[in-house]
Amino acid sequence: MEITSESNPTIKFVKGLQIKKNRMKYKQFVIEGLRFLQEALEHGVALEYILYSDSAKKIKGGDELIQQIEGKYQMYHLPDKLMEKLSETENPQGIMAVINMPEYSLDSLSEEKELFLVVLDRIQDPGNMGTIIRTAEGAGANAVLITKGSVDPYNSKTLRATMGAVFHFPVVQVEEDEELIEFLKKNKVRMVATHLDTENTYDMIDYKGSIALIIGNEANGIQEGFVAQAEEMIKIPIVGKIESLNASVAAGVLIYKAFENRRK
Amino acid sequence: MEITSESNPTIKFVKGLQIKKNRMKYKQFVIEGLRFLQEALEHGVALEYILYSDSAKKIKGGDELIQQIEGKYQMYHLPDKLMEKLSETENPQGIMAVINMPEYSLDSLSEEKELFLVVLDRIQDPGNMGTIIRTAEGAGANAVLITKGSVDPYNSKTLRATMGAVFHFPVVQVEEDEELIEFLKKNKVRMVATHLDTENTYDMIDYKGSIALIIGNEANGIQEGFVAQAEEMIKIPIVGKIESLNASVAAGVLIYKAFENRRK
Repeated sequence: MEITSESNPTIKFVKGLQIKKNRMKYKQFVIEGLRFLQEALEHGVALEYILYSDSAKKIKGGDELIQQIEGKYQMYHLPDKLMEKLSETENPQGIMAVINMPEYSLDSLSEEKELFLVVLDRIQDPGNMGTIIRTAEGAGANAVLITKGSVDPYNSKTLRATMGAVFHFPVVQVEEDEELIEFLKKNKVRMVATHLDTENTYDMIDYKGSIALIIGNEANGIQEGFVAQAEEMIKIPIVGKIESLNASVAAGVLIYKAFENRRK
Repeated sequence: MEITSESNPTIKFVKGLQIKKNRMKYKQFVIEGLRFLQEALEHGVALEYILYSDSAKKIKGGDELIQQIEGKYQMYHLPDKLMEKLSETENPQGIMAVINMPEYSLDSLSEEKELFLVVLDRIQDPGNMGTIIRTAEGAGANAVLITKGSVDPYNSKTLRATMGAVFHFPVVQVEEDEELIEFLKKNKVRMVATHLDTENTYDMIDYKGSIALIIGNEANGIQEGFVAQAEEMIKIPIVGKIESLNASVAAGVLIYKAFENRRK
């Protein structure tokens, strides 16, 4: 189907999905670029429709992909100019898709016998969030749980940093912190929190059994409500003159230490 | 001193420092922003001169800083418009400084009894390089060595990601790979390389004594020349469907494992 006008309702709707409120309301998000779309297709995500312009055909593999999916999905063809206006990337590839959000809930996690969870408490940087989701999947965690006040995992920058992990790995946005704590207590999940006021380093504790690693906000750390409930408090030692590690690196060190310990 | 014209030789020179070739030729680089400048001053870096515009005075702490340093350093005052043109950041703060590169050499490292080194082999992303330098300092490494073909550590994006580590932590750019290998052999530094073709995971080896962790290029890994010379080959295990970890995270996991092992 051909779309030529910016005032077309589909264009307006897709543009609207750049805003978190609309993504939450319609439970849909947008991915951009050839490689990202291919990955989505490989993982059989719930793809709603595809928008593309002629420039996508000029990219290596673009023409083949479009031919391959034509007829299988609702496709909209746009002029390059309109596509560029719609794009959120610096170098638009001329292809994007609207995806239905996977619906993961805390309840679905209760079925696992032993849980390895990563909780992101008000992480603000989309790159950090995406990178930590990618690390959590790589280390065999069951899910990433995200507290209210965190950046949206379906933000385009977060999606890019996950490198596709979001298509096949459970990411649960939890509405209320109390709900999250209650879920962890009910399922006997030990909470491990990083904190400056402890002498325990991250390599001194046991990560076996059901655990949740709480990763705090880049500037302010973990909320007191979580700290108060945490069974274990740890810190990552730092020498030299730097004040802190990059948030994705600190999370990676912790998540992989837990993975290492759990493998043994 | 007042500068008003874009064709002023100092302005041209500072603009020229955006290019690696010029940074290498003049052994100088530019830092931007109030906090970064404060950090540079705290660490007593070799500051050549400062450029600022009125907008810097409107930032919290800006006026105080300018008053404090006036008379101590060569200062140039610019119109806001010209400052914006000179800036490489999205939100220029109206203050920058030209710094003399710290001169670290392989020779100066030979004096250490036991070396803990991180070698970055053709790392391309400035953010990754900066983050890894920051992690290396945090884990107590002696230096980061950078091979030819890597991104410049004095690139503005790398500088920002180091969070100031570059002011007080030795970063050595090594001209020739052979020179680097020779240095490591001469100083009996064990080379540890990550590689896909090994069954050894990173937590199986000993990191004590003099070691160099080789971190490879984001897409192509470590050069064969280094792999051939490496005493230990390791990999970071990955489960799930992702193909790899983020390069900064992978480096962080490895560097902190070595730090953990060396502390014990």
